[in-house]
Amino acid sequence: MTSHSAPVAVDAMGGDHAPGAIVQGAIDAARKGHPVVLVGPEAVVRDELARRHAARSLPIEVHHATEVIDFDDHPGQAMRRKKDNSIRVCFDLVAEGTACGMVSAGNSGAVMAGAIMVLGRPAGVERPAIVTVLPGLKGQPLMLDMGANVDCKPIHLVQFGLMGEVYSRRVLGVARPSVAVLSNGEEESKGTELTRAASAALKRAGIDFRGYCEGRDLLTGEFDVIVTDGFTGNVALKTMEGTAKVVGEHLKRAIRSTLVSTVGGLLARKALEGMKKKMDWREVGGAPLLGVNGVGFISHGRSDALAIENAVRRAHQAAKTHFVDDIAAAVAPAEALLARAQES
Amino acid sequence: MTSHSAPVAVDAMGGDHAPGAIVQGAIDAARKGHPVVLVGPEAVVRDELARRHAARSLPIEVHHATEVIDFDDHPGQAMRRKKDNSIRVCFDLVAEGTACGMVSAGNSGAVMAGAIMVLGRPAGVERPAIVTVLPGLKGQPLMLDMGANVDCKPIHLVQFGLMGEVYSRRVLGVARPSVAVLSNGEEESKGTELTRAASAALKRAGIDFRGYCEGRDLLTGEFDVIVTDGFTGNVALKTMEGTAKVVGEHLKRAIRSTLVSTVGGLLARKALEGMKKKMDWREVGGAPLLGVNGVGFISHGRSDALAIENAVRRAHQAAKTHFVDDIAAAVAPAEALLARAQES
Repeated sequence: MTSHSAPVAVDAMGGDHAPGAIVQGAIDAARKGHPVVLVGPEAVVRDELARRHAARSLPIEVHHATEVIDFDDHPGQAMRRKKDNSIRVCFDLVAEGTACGMVSAGNSGAVMAGAIMVLGRPAGVERPAIVTVLPGLKGQPLMLDMGANVDCKPIHLVQFGLMGEVYSRRVLGVARPSVAVLSNGEEESKGTELTRAASAALKRAGIDFRGYCEGRDLLTGEFDVIVTDGFTGNVALKTMEGTAKVVGEHLKRAIRSTLVSTVGGLLARKALEGMKKKMDWREVGGAPLLGVNGVGFISHGRSDALAIENAVRRAHQAAKTHFVDDIAAAVAPAEALLARAQES
Repeated sequence: MTSHSAPVAVDAMGGDHAPGAIVQGAIDAARKGHPVVLVGPEAVVRDELARRHAARSLPIEVHHATEVIDFDDHPGQAMRRKKDNSIRVCFDLVAEGTACGMVSAGNSGAVMAGAIMVLGRPAGVERPAIVTVLPGLKGQPLMLDMGANVDCKPIHLVQFGLMGEVYSRRVLGVARPSVAVLSNGEEESKGTELTRAASAALKRAGIDFRGYCEGRDLLTGEFDVIVTDGFTGNVALKTMEGTAKVVGEHLKRAIRSTLVSTVGGLLARKALEGMKKKMDWREVGGAPLLGVNGVGFISHGRSDALAIENAVRRAHQAAKTHFVDDIAAAVAPAEALLARAQES
């Protein structure tokens, strides 16, 4: 990565810790050679940069945007009413080619709405999806959709599978990604009407489709792409977060319970912190959007500087691969696959 | 618990480690004063009892059943064809009052089918549910349904909430259980048509209904009863299991990574094992059935003796409370609640 490539647009005003943590994350990314353009009220952003002693030589630009979308704004309405909001301006920069991608830790509904409005969808894409890269025991398993599409039809799940396969292959470099549909059991007879129809179609897609996977397979890394509707995906993701947190809490209590175990815990502390980092969602940085004409990453509302830095890095990586060019061709056979599956 | 009370019927032939582990679990329960009647081919069961030196003075009876349902049998068909199967005979004993409840680690679909066929449902119950007691940070949070009902309608979720509230109050002794519907966000506008309709009705039920909860709330113990469809419930449960396992694996690798941390891990070992026990699904023993005329517990297919012992103990506890008598009254207002919610 050289400073000659187009920057990633960073929404300076999105997230619980904006603008401070966001600007810091952008500075950290720029220091590692990843160019950024910070989008938000110019005075506010420049003030944050000055306070953080960002060197003028860093590949950081500032692009003015007057308005901010809040977490409790209605995504679609806010996107239309607040024309000059920082999320929308990020996408404008991507659309005109000034930025190679964007990152926002703001209102995720508004980010999705902005992506669809400004970038639009590749031909044939029914519904864009939010992808999560999971902290698997091995590999970088993807799960989609993560909450953009709550009520799904089979065609949506089939397209999620095909788009996720492209992302895993092109961006994460998995030679032949394995794809599975999340269900309540491994047997074909399990699942809902939705999962059975999607599964029957994906089986015919000429990809490495493995049928159903279960909740316990999400983090093993056995499957590269895990397909689900946005409701189930969101529940599963938050269940993973909650479980990891509760296990950590049990662990802390257990270690503090006796003197010997406290000493043991101190000796093992570095290792335990290493584990915490492995399971840390901030390391992942952000969730890419799939099915829009450009690169967009939604970061967690609680994002700190590290999360933003990682999201910027990943957005640059994704943009370099031009994976978006392959999405239309990937989803094109979806309808025919569903029809053929229904015939047999 | 004295040996004068009716025994719990234990399906000696159900589960991956049957009959050995099941018979051992029944012996362990009997040794702690919980009477059991082991159901299965009499010669096989008596042979296992003799091999394990079970004293004749223990409160253990044996009831002959000639047939066994396998894991790959179709639940409903097998229940009808194999008339004298051990699951069905367990329920017969419950129905005639010879046993106060039953436990099986066998084909869970067959256990549910047997419960409905032999025990039947209390008046007004649309669909019985499988309940899981979660290893929460505090309390004993329940989640239902755990997989019996994959495609649910609002009436089913409303009844699950009302039945779960009875179980938490009457069996687990929670004075005023808090109830929530599992969703993809806390706001009322989130969720699916299914969760919104169920939530609107439960709000009017005169119970401590808290609206939506999320995946991250399952193990905190903040909610006593968590309501969901069987598909989502199954995914969430297996996601918890899988996440706890992967965190443990990361922990093991982290501790083994250096000499100092290995020593630390050894010193903290007891504490770590204590934590493992806290998160151990075997401690919970089994998942109670709700919405049938009797006490039935489905244990994990991988159940060992400890899981069976715990399930027997819990079945005795549940039977003593006669909570089943309250189920019909609890579900009775469900239809009216839904209608009223739709009006407003």
